[in-house]
Amino acid sequence: MSRVENKSTETGSNMRRVFVADLGGTHLRSAVVDQAGTIHFHAKQHTPIAESAQDIVDALVAAERECERQNAAAGYSIDAISVVAPGTVNVAAGSIVKAPNLPFLSGFNLTGALSHALKLPAILENDANAAAVGEMWLGAARGLRTVVCVTLGTGVGGGIILDGKLWHGVNDSAAEVGHMCVDPFGGVACTCGSRGCLEVYASATAIVRMTREAKPRHPNSRLQIDNELTSESIYRAGVEGDELALEVFRRMGVYLGIGLANLINILNPEMIVIGGGVVNGWDLFEKHMKHEVAERAFPLLADQVTIVPAECGDDAGLLGAARLSFDSDLKN
Amino acid sequence: MSRVENKSTETGSNMRRVFVADLGGTHLRSAVVDQAGTIHFHAKQHTPIAESAQDIVDALVAAERECERQNAAAGYSIDAISVVAPGTVNVAAGSIVKAPNLPFLSGFNLTGALSHALKLPAILENDANAAAVGEMWLGAARGLRTVVCVTLGTGVGGGIILDGKLWHGVNDSAAEVGHMCVDPFGGVACTCGSRGCLEVYASATAIVRMTREAKPRHPNSRLQIDNELTSESIYRAGVEGDELALEVFRRMGVYLGIGLANLINILNPEMIVIGGGVVNGWDLFEKHMKHEVAERAFPLLADQVTIVPAECGDDAGLLGAARLSFDSDLKN
Repeated sequence: MSRVENKSTETGSNMRRVFVADLGGTHLRSAVVDQAGTIHFHAKQHTPIAESAQDIVDALVAAERECERQNAAAGYSIDAISVVAPGTVNVAAGSIVKAPNLPFLSGFNLTGALSHALKLPAILENDANAAAVGEMWLGAARGLRTVVCVTLGTGVGGGIILDGKLWHGVNDSAAEVGHMCVDPFGGVACTCGSRGCLEVYASATAIVRMTREAKPRHPNSRLQIDNELTSESIYRAGVEGDELALEVFRRMGVYLGIGLANLINILNPEMIVIGGGVVNGWDLFEKHMKHEVAERAFPLLADQVTIVPAECGDDAGLLGAARLSFDSDLKN
Repeated sequence: MSRVENKSTETGSNMRRVFVADLGGTHLRSAVVDQAGTIHFHAKQHTPIAESAQDIVDALVAAERECERQNAAAGYSIDAISVVAPGTVNVAAGSIVKAPNLPFLSGFNLTGALSHALKLPAILENDANAAAVGEMWLGAARGLRTVVCVTLGTGVGGGIILDGKLWHGVNDSAAEVGHMCVDPFGGVACTCGSRGCLEVYASATAIVRMTREAKPRHPNSRLQIDNELTSESIYRAGVEGDELALEVFRRMGVYLGIGLANLINILNPEMIVIGGGVVNGWDLFEKHMKHEVAERAFPLLADQVTIVPAECGDDAGLLGAARLSFDSDLKN
C-alpha cells in the first residue's frame, strides 16, 4: 500500500468522499475514502460483542459520526455509505442473507437502518467481492477488466470481475471459490456440509489443522502444537527451513493450484489475485501452486493468466467499498 | 424439438434468414434458419476427409449454395453466414485457433475465406457456446438469462451465459467445463495433459471406457466388450437392469454432480442444461448427479438452480449459430 492516511496531495473539495466500513467477525474497520482512493481517518476496533443487529448498527453509526466529525473539520463532506460484510448479502435489498460469523445479522436490512440513522444513501457488498474491486482499482489488477480474486483468510472467499463488472450470480452468491471441491473422495469435511473444499486446505485455519495433523510425521519440527500456533508462526518456521512447515505449505499450494486451474478453465481470466492473510506465505506455496496450474489448466489459458499476490492488504475491502459507491457500472 | 423443416407458418419475407453450419469432427450439418427459429433445408453429410482447410471451405461453400438455391426457389434470400466448430476459436478474428478433431484448420481464418467465396458477412463460434445460446433461445432455458450448458458428447464441452451474454473469457476459451478436475489424485489421464478431468468420466468415450474397465467385476453383464459397444448400447442395457451399465452411469452421475456443484458455487446460475448424446442416459444418472450436487453445492445456490436435460438435441448448435447472427448483443 502506497496510500497513507491524511495524505496532503488531495485535489480539492470537489472530489466525492464516502464513509466505508469493513465489518468482519473480529474487527470493524472504517474510514473515509475519496475518489482518488486516498484513505482518511482510518479506524480499527474490535467488532462489538453484539446481541442484536442494532448493536452493530450503533457501532457503525458511531464510527461514521467520528469520521464525519474529522472530515468536516478538514472541510469536506461525506455523501454516501458503503459497507462490506462476510457471508451472503442481497445487494439490491441491502440486507445480509446469512453471515455465519455475525448470526444476529442474518436477514437484517443493514443499509435501510444505516440510511435511516445517517440520512445518507447506503450500499452493502460481500467483503471478498469488494476486495476484488479494490485490487482492480488500486492494487495488483490495476487496469485489467477480467480478474478473479481469491482471499485466503480464516476461510477462503472470492470475487469475480468479468469485463469490468462484478459477477454476483442470480442470488448474489457467486464466487464461493472456497467451496470448490479439490478432493472429492476422502477429503476433509467442511463446515458447509461438503468435503474436500478448497477452504479446508488453503485457509489459515486449514494451515494450522494440517500442521497439527502432520506433526507426528515430523517429530523434529520446532513447531509446538499449542494454542499459540498460527499460520503466521508456521510460515516463519518454514522460512527457516522447518520441514513440517514446508510440507504444509507445499500441500496447501497443491490444493490451491487445483482450484485455480478450475477457475482458469471455467472463466479464462487475465489475472488471479491471491489475497488474505495467508498470502504472506507466498514464497513457500507459489512454486507448488504454479506447478499444479501448469499441469492442469489448458495451456492456452494458463499461458495467458498471471497469478500474483494482492497489493492492497487489509485495505482492499475498504477501497472496493468506496469504488462500488463511486462507480455503479461495476455492479451488474 | 417442435420445429420442423419447411414449416408453413412463416410470417413473411421480411424475416431475416441466415445460413448456418455445425462443423463437427464426424458430421457437417447445415441449414437455413429464420428469425423465428424455424430450420429450413436441413442437410447432414460426413465431414469431408480433408487434407487442407480449403477442402472444408469448399464443402461449406457447396452446402451454402445448395441451401441458397432452395431458399431462393422458396422466395427468400440469405443475408449472413454463421458457422460453429469444435475447439478454440478466435471469435473477433473469425479464425480457428485449435481444433483437435480438424487439425488442418488450426490457425485458419474461416470466416474470411467464406466471406470471400460467398460475398456475405460470416461469423464463427465454438460449438458448445452456440449450443448454450440455442438452448436459451428455443430450448430448455427459454426466457432465462444466466445459464450453463454442459454438452456430454465424444468429449465434454460447455457454454456459459451470464446475464444474457455469452461469456467468452479473455481468449475466447472460457467454459472448458470438461477439464474441471473432479478427481485430482489418482484420476484417469486426460488428453489435455491433466488427470481426473470431468471429460474422462462423463463423455460417451468415458462411458465406454468405464464399462470395459468394470466388466471383470460384473461377469454376468449382458454387455460384450467389443467394438460395437457404445454409450447408447450401455444405456439400453441399464434400462433393462444390467448391473454393469447401472454402475457405470452411477459413477458418471457422481462425477458429473461434483463438476456441477463447482459450477454452481462459482457462477450461481439459474439453470444448468445438460446436452449432448449422453444426456439420453438421463434417467440412469440423474439421481446420482443430483444427490452429489445436494451434498456439495451451497444450499442457497443449490435450491435456486434447476438442472435439466437439453431440448434442442442436435439442432442446438445450428439454432445458436443463427441467434448469434441475429443478435449481436449476445456476444461480449
